[in-house]
Amino acid sequence: MPDDIRIRVVNPNTTRAMTDLVGRSARVVAGPGVHVDAVQPTTGPASIESHYEEALAAVGVLEQVRRGEAEGVDAYVVACFGDPGLDAAREVACGPVLGIAEAAFHAAAMVARRFSVVTTLGRTVGRAYELLDRYGYAGACAGVHACEIPVLAIEAPGALARVTAACRAAVEADDVDAVVLGCAGMAAYTQRLSDAVGVPVVDGVAAATTFVAGLVRAGLRTSTRSEYAPPPPKPVPGLLGGFAITSPAALAAVPH
Amino acid sequence: MPDDIRIRVVNPNTTRAMTDLVGRSARVVAGPGVHVDAVQPTTGPASIESHYEEALAAVGVLEQVRRGEAEGVDAYVVACFGDPGLDAAREVACGPVLGIAEAAFHAAAMVARRFSVVTTLGRTVGRAYELLDRYGYAGACAGVHACEIPVLAIEAPGALARVTAACRAAVEADDVDAVVLGCAGMAAYTQRLSDAVGVPVVDGVAAATTFVAGLVRAGLRTSTRSEYAPPPPKPVPGLLGGFAITSPAALAAVPH
Amino acid sequence: MPDDIRIRVVNPNTTRAMTDLVGRSARVVAGPGVHVDAVQPTTGPASIESHYEEALAAVGVLEQVRRGEAEGVDAYVVACFGDPGLDAAREVACGPVLGIAEAAFHAAAMVARRFSVVTTLGRTVGRAYELLDRYGYAGACAGVHACEIPVLAIEAPGALARVTAACRAAVEADDVDAVVLGCAGMAAYTQRLSDAVGVPVVDGVAAATTFVAGLVRAGLRTSTRSEYAPPPPKPVPGLLGGFAITSPAALAAVPH
Amino acid sequence: MPDDIRIRVVNPNTTRAMTDLVGRSARVVAGPGVHVDAVQPTTGPASIESHYEEALAAVGVLEQVRRGEAEGVDAYVVACFGDPGLDAAREVACGPVLGIAEAAFHAAAMVARRFSVVTTLGRTVGRAYELLDRYGYAGACAGVHACEIPVLAIEAPGALARVTAACRAAVEADDVDAVVLGCAGMAAYTQRLSDAVGVPVVDGVAAATTFVAGLVRAGLRTSTRSEYAPPPPKPVPGLLGGFAITSPAALAAVPH
Amino acid sequence: MPDDIRIRVVNPNTTRAMTDLVGRSARVVAGPGVHVDAVQPTTGPASIESHYEEALAAVGVLEQVRRGEAEGVDAYVVACFGDPGLDAAREVACGPVLGIAEAAFHAAAMVARRFSVVTTLGRTVGRAYELLDRYGYAGACAGVHACEIPVLAIEAPGALARVTAACRAAVEADDVDAVVLGCAGMAAYTQRLSDAVGVPVVDGVAAATTFVAGLVRAGLRTSTRSEYAPPPPKPVPGLLGGFAITSPAALAAVPH
Amino acid sequence: MPDDIRIRVVNPNTTRAMTDLVGRSARVVAGPGVHVDAVQPTTGPASIESHYEEALAAVGVLEQVRRGEAEGVDAYVVACFGDPGLDAAREVACGPVLGIAEAAFHAAAMVARRFSVVTTLGRTVGRAYELLDRYGYAGACAGVHACEIPVLAIEAPGALARVTAACRAAVEADDVDAVVLGCAGMAAYTQRLSDAVGVPVVDGVAAATTFVAGLVRAGLRTSTRSEYAPPPPKPVPGLLGGFAITSPAALAAVPH
Repeated sequence: MPDDIRIRVVNPNTTRAMTDLVGRSARVVAGPGVHVDAVQPTTGPASIESHYEEALAAVGVLEQVRRGEAEGVDAYVVACFGDPGLDAAREVACGPVLGIAEAAFHAAAMVARRFSVVTTLGRTVGRAYELLDRYGYAGACAGVHACEIPVLAIEAPGALARVTAACRAAVEADDVDAVVLGCAGMAAYTQRLSDAVGVPVVDGVAAATTFVAGLVRAGLRTSTRSEYAPPPPKPVPGLLGGFAITSPAALAAVPH
Repeated sequence: MPDDIRIRVVNPNTTRAMTDLVGRSARVVAGPGVHVDAVQPTTGPASIESHYEEALAAVGVLEQVRRGEAEGVDAYVVACFGDPGLDAAREVACGPVLGIAEAAFHAAAMVARRFSVVTTLGRTVGRAYELLDRYGYAGACAGVHACEIPVLAIEAPGALARVTAACRAAVEADDVDAVVLGCAGMAAYTQRLSDAVGVPVVDGVAAATTFVAGLVRAGLRTSTRSEYAPPPPKPVPGLLGGFAITSPAALAAVPH
Repeated sequence: MPDDIRIRVVNPNTTRAMTDLVGRSARVVAGPGVHVDAVQPTTGPASIESHYEEALAAVGVLEQVRRGEAEGVDAYVVACFGDPGLDAAREVACGPVLGIAEAAFHAAAMVARRFSVVTTLGRTVGRAYELLDRYGYAGACAGVHACEIPVLAIEAPGALARVTAACRAAVEADDVDAVVLGCAGMAAYTQRLSDAVGVPVVDGVAAATTFVAGLVRAGLRTSTRSEYAPPPPKPVPGLLGGFAITSPAALAAVPH
Repeated sequence: MPDDIRIRVVNPNTTRAMTDLVGRSARVVAGPGVHVDAVQPTTGPASIESHYEEALAAVGVLEQVRRGEAEGVDAYVVACFGDPGLDAAREVACGPVLGIAEAAFHAAAMVARRFSVVTTLGRTVGRAYELLDRYGYAGACAGVHACEIPVLAIEAPGALARVTAACRAAVEADDVDAVVLGCAGMAAYTQRLSDAVGVPVVDGVAAATTFVAGLVRAGLRTSTRSEYAPPPPKPVPGLLGGFAITSPAALAAVPH
Repeated sequence: MPDDIRIRVVNPNTTRAMTDLVGRSARVVAGPGVHVDAVQPTTGPASIESHYEEALAAVGVLEQVRRGEAEGVDAYVVACFGDPGLDAAREVACGPVLGIAEAAFHAAAMVARRFSVVTTLGRTVGRAYELLDRYGYAGACAGVHACEIPVLAIEAPGALARVTAACRAAVEADDVDAVVLGCAGMAAYTQRLSDAVGVPVVDGVAAATTFVAGLVRAGLRTSTRSEYAPPPPKPVPGLLGGFAITSPAALAAVPH
Repeated sequence: MPDDIRIRVVNPNTTRAMTDLVGRSARVVAGPGVHVDAVQPTTGPASIESHYEEALAAVGVLEQVRRGEAEGVDAYVVACFGDPGLDAAREVACGPVLGIAEAAFHAAAMVARRFSVVTTLGRTVGRAYELLDRYGYAGACAGVHACEIPVLAIEAPGALARVTAACRAAVEADDVDAVVLGCAGMAAYTQRLSDAVGVPVVDGVAAATTFVAGLVRAGLRTSTRSEYAPPPPKPVPGLLGGFAITSPAALAAVPH
């Protein structure tokens, strides 16, 4: 077990305020001996509300994880609810990598029988269901609900009231005993939402940060047996050429 | 129903020989009135055998689909078995978009009760299972098997024999009545494999090409109601800046 | 690949107007080089709204498929939403056979994340759920809704308005991005429904016709390895004696 | 609760020896106050080993159930492992109707955690899996295995030894604690198989007979709320004309 | 097959009136040749409305089953809807053991396509869903609904009206064709509920009693191959020391 | 977030050596600021290898959790792979409670695509599958394998070699990239097994300890909305009378 654990929270979008927010959310729960920093890609969309943006953002996540490897980071959190680039990041990181959707579902299942998800825009609901299936929570989740607030407006006046109303409605309609927040941007609201609604409200940034630190303490890192082994070196022509992995040793390098 | 249908087969990797191969595979089944061209991205990995490469390749798929929109293409086939960028491509294309994994599963289910998948490297098996779940074929697929031939060696001497052996073994071990080929590069082998193994062998390029043409003839295109609506315009700083969608009208434009 | 493809659409009920309707629906999407005819059994119920009628209708489907084999038909569509006799038809046909429920589900999944089904009578809802399970679409379908119009009244005045209302209500209540029509008799309404509701509306007759033609072009026919091999010759005493298969060669013959 | 219960076991094929066998199997377990008779259709295949034959046999099942209604039968067992015509039979019978596959799965789940199915020909395996899904036993069943003995040879010399070997192999390979027999014709072997293999061996005829009697004693009959309500009266031209239901009262009549 | 069958209905709680009720419910359907007695533990909660109480009650069930073994009982019914101690009871009983939740689900699936469950307190809904999953009925059950009446108030004035209303509402909201009663205490209401709601209403005590008698008649008892073999002898210090199994022969003894 | 976190690891069996072992396993990963103690019930079986023993052990878990509540414990780990009494413990604890099966599955899914479970006796395999279903890991787990070593012999000479062989065989046969240890008694072997087999090997005691500490840091505790609310006060006559909850305030008391 390392004496000190370095966790990097990667905000997959390129909005600085969001990066700062997820960094604060992670630090508050990290506990003694865990050092958290928060970063964002040098390229990619300002927020992620579509599959198109998620595809672009995945590239940025990989850029930051490879940079982290060069800097000796122990573990990563991918801090967007679509878990963009998560499996790819596992291939290029030595330590464990957690997405916040994944972590939030795990946490909710630990403190409740069934939960609902409250997310931003309705167009992201399908991706949430896909992730629920992927992680085995199709049965534990009773519904995914959108409050139709764009990601970058989630801290605007009135937003908390709308998210609160959506959480309350979800608990009643779905008869669940917990709520998962479907956007990293809602992290600052967690405690107030839980107080207002009367059930555990789960923020994936907090869950992922403590769980990934736990994996490091337990000596667990991503398997390299097959699927998540480092990608084979291979040419990458054109714009993304800096992302080519030219040798196994070059994995821990900053794409340029 | 359009008199003539233009289908673009997008090879997500940047290897010209593979692009030519999938183009031929598609043309041979397209039928009268269907015009097929085959393209590849200007950037991205030479082949796709990891999540990391798939994430990079998705960007190239989006580049080519947006180019196709500027050129009036009616429908698209994403010709890599991981279906990279498929959901994102649906958001930026007017006409239907099919992945070859998806199409191959549909086709196999139409001619057989249960099928096995024979793919290239063992490290891609997990993604195949994920797609089977995503498309509803977890029950219909009895096994995914790797023949451990890299994608770019799939036309090398001896490869056909190994793929044949893998198909035969899968049919016996899994007791299935069809085989799905887990790599676009195997398309040229389809008929010989079917003859050798004695069951339908499904190539996703052929299946996707005829099915997507069928969708066009039936007047069906991707829903724009919610999830697959065009992405909202938004800044994209840095390397991927050319992929920013600056206005709804700019969707049909070549990222630069 | 055959130069010309002969597709037979089998209406499983014995109502001539329905046979004509499904024939028209199929022809309109078939495309160049595809010849469609539409037939109906010489015996069986006037419409199919119960399991009892479906059991009787399956016999008629088999009669018409065996007749088609004697006439050199390349592929078949079973044009009733319960897919009656589909597996049995596959055993006696050389070419592929598709049911319209099956094809409609595939098509809907190609253009939407989740769909609802709008069908005729409530008593057929259970069968629709059974088929969704059978084909792997239990997760993709968000609901099956009846508009409580008998099959043979589906073209009566006022019916379109009721079906439209049911489609609209399903899209809202289930939050889906496509609708599948649960009766071949609704085929003529497809375009108007899609225009009115604003999402893709899928008619199984069109979907099955273009997909089964695609299977023929791709060289795919039902597997004969095990389950779908021709039935063994065997005595059939009594009323159904004409359906006995007296030798493998006799498969392609008209039951009498 | 009726004083005496009349149960009719319908053998869906037209082989008298099989009818006698299932009658004996049912009578031996029926218990006091339960009267069992066994019947077979006047038309249909000599045995059922394909979907084609199952479709023909369903008509015969309906013939016999309607005759039973005219004679005051309290409950029915459909004694072929494909449960042919079961849902249709429920629509035309007042009392409960059980298939032997269904009943065998229920019974096996009551005395074991997981079971395997041992059936006749490999071509029937797909139907067995379909029924396991239909009844909710996809998880409880660990495997379906064929001993490749035709139905009508199941009492031939050597057959018991092969079935025994198949049961033993299934228990070892699948690590299960019970076996379900996949053919009514194996009913006479049940006790010997159980003794030889050392786990409960479940014959569906016995299970269905005692369970359907239990339903009658518990006052339970098939719901008539929606799906299983009697079929609406309707014309049936041609060969199957005798199966037309001309009025609600005519349900309890012998098709001719 | 035994001439006479002795079935013991174990009420897992310690309320005498409930024991008497489930005894009556069982006797009324048992049929000739089946002798039913009803017992309750010497220790445990007065009613079972939480996981905590269920854990305590399981001990009482085991006490009574071991006592039954000493007295030559042929089969057991565990008469609380959470099926407490069921798997454990199977390990210590020679004959079959059925829970009433399990039996009710089986029975409902035999007479209806889909059913709803109407239970007592909302806090037990999660356990009901867990059992539905365990027994394979997640797909067949459309909803679990609480009427918020404590178990011991289920025979109080006004209770029948509330349960009736809950059943009616469930049938309409879930569009099901049967209702399962989620508490043994509702058994006396079964016929009146069925008459009022117009669908089969299933009481698990009746279902379990007739089914377990059927298992005995069919010669089926719990498998002893692996999971349900008798527990190995082992020390049990402290309060529960009387429950220690000191030797295989001591299984059939009353814990003290 | 509390400055110091008190976690109690409850060994559900009554063997002191096992209690000491799980205490050590937990302490080694707990990290700064987390205080771990390990306890065992005053009554219950020496080891847990059957449902019968699990039912007895659940009572002991509840005894120790209620004692912990009286002593101000922040969170609990139930350290037996069957997760005995877990849901009940959640009802009587203020802080979060994790089972080691549950936690191990979560951890394995975080570092691998698919895992196998290696457990002690074959008779516990069914319970493992039940828990996999319960927690949503039926798809992620490729197999549960027994090495047929009794729990209390797991530290005997030769045991490590057998467990190692079982883990290696599971990885090959199931083609998985991680292994979950199916018994708390294997915790001391974790690192050696991982080194020998070359994939992450997950011990649930370590996983549960770090995760439950993470839940406390993230401010998450079991929901009290419905299912996991404290049990209602109620009489408990007889042997278990000390477990009665006489008032809400009495929850935090040692049963006697």
